[in-house]
Amino acid sequence: MTNCVLCKDDLKPDEGQVIWRGDDCRVILVNDQDLPGFCRVIWNRHVAEMTDLTQGERDHMMTLVFAVEGAIRHVLNPDKVNVAALGNMVPHIHWHVIPRFRDDAFFPGSPWSKRTQETLATTLEARRQKVQELPKAIKAAIAGLA
Amino acid sequence: MTNCVLCKDDLKPDEGQVIWRGDDCRVILVNDQDLPGFCRVIWNRHVAEMTDLTQGERDHMMTLVFAVEGAIRHVLNPDKVNVAALGNMVPHIHWHVIPRFRDDAFFPGSPWSKRTQETLATTLEARRQKVQELPKAIKAAIAGLA
Repeated sequence: MTNCVLCKDDLKPDEGQVIWRGDDCRVILVNDQDLPGFCRVIWNRHVAEMTDLTQGERDHMMTLVFAVEGAIRHVLNPDKVNVAALGNMVPHIHWHVIPRFRDDAFFPGSPWSKRTQETLATTLEARRQKVQELPKAIKAAIAGLA
Repeated sequence: MTNCVLCKDDLKPDEGQVIWRGDDCRVILVNDQDLPGFCRVIWNRHVAEMTDLTQGERDHMMTLVFAVEGAIRHVLNPDKVNVAALGNMVPHIHWHVIPRFRDDAFFPGSPWSKRTQETLATTLEARRQKVQELPKAIKAAIAGLA
């Protein structure tokens, strides 16, 4: 769709980086100041809902989502992972896969809730350093899928 | 776990109703004042993350989640469906499956964002009436799974 930002498939360098791209989906590491390691799995074609996909397409996408979750857990060892497909603003299927920590800016709320606290700058910086290992881990996790 | 509300598996009548129960999962219709048709798919055992489940268990749960999404779309024809597994407060796998409308209290934000508007009382009431068809539709959708 002409006016859909996820159809355009261009990413400004300050928004994040494409980690992996397949025929149907791509995986983005989002440059989020509060939640380092925030990833997004995006369906390439413009489709609004998961139930608009075939069973096989759905399975494929969820396999990628959980491969990303696995890599995030392996690299960052978060207290929780949040997985969500909302799309109220951009109705083009994309899954947010987000490492959450007890001391992150929104914990225990959702990543879209009110800020609850400020994370220590040194802690955030250490997480950002770890996140540099994430692209390689995600690529390896996807490559290892049957 | 002793102190986990989702392990207890009891639901006060004003919280919602169990629509379907299987060996591994159950489906709840949540009594949400702002978002009628809000459903929850809960893993029965205490497990924190989707990647703690086996591939087969994950597939089973997501099949149920998308069966619920399909039934919600069929009965309520929402503008969008939101699907999310957060678990920051209750780290026991549960998926929120939520019909969203352009005039609902949080649109276009997440269901956990700040209220943006008030839905007309008559509109909400009409939706609540439609939601009465949802349990039957969800049961039929799950019964129809291969």
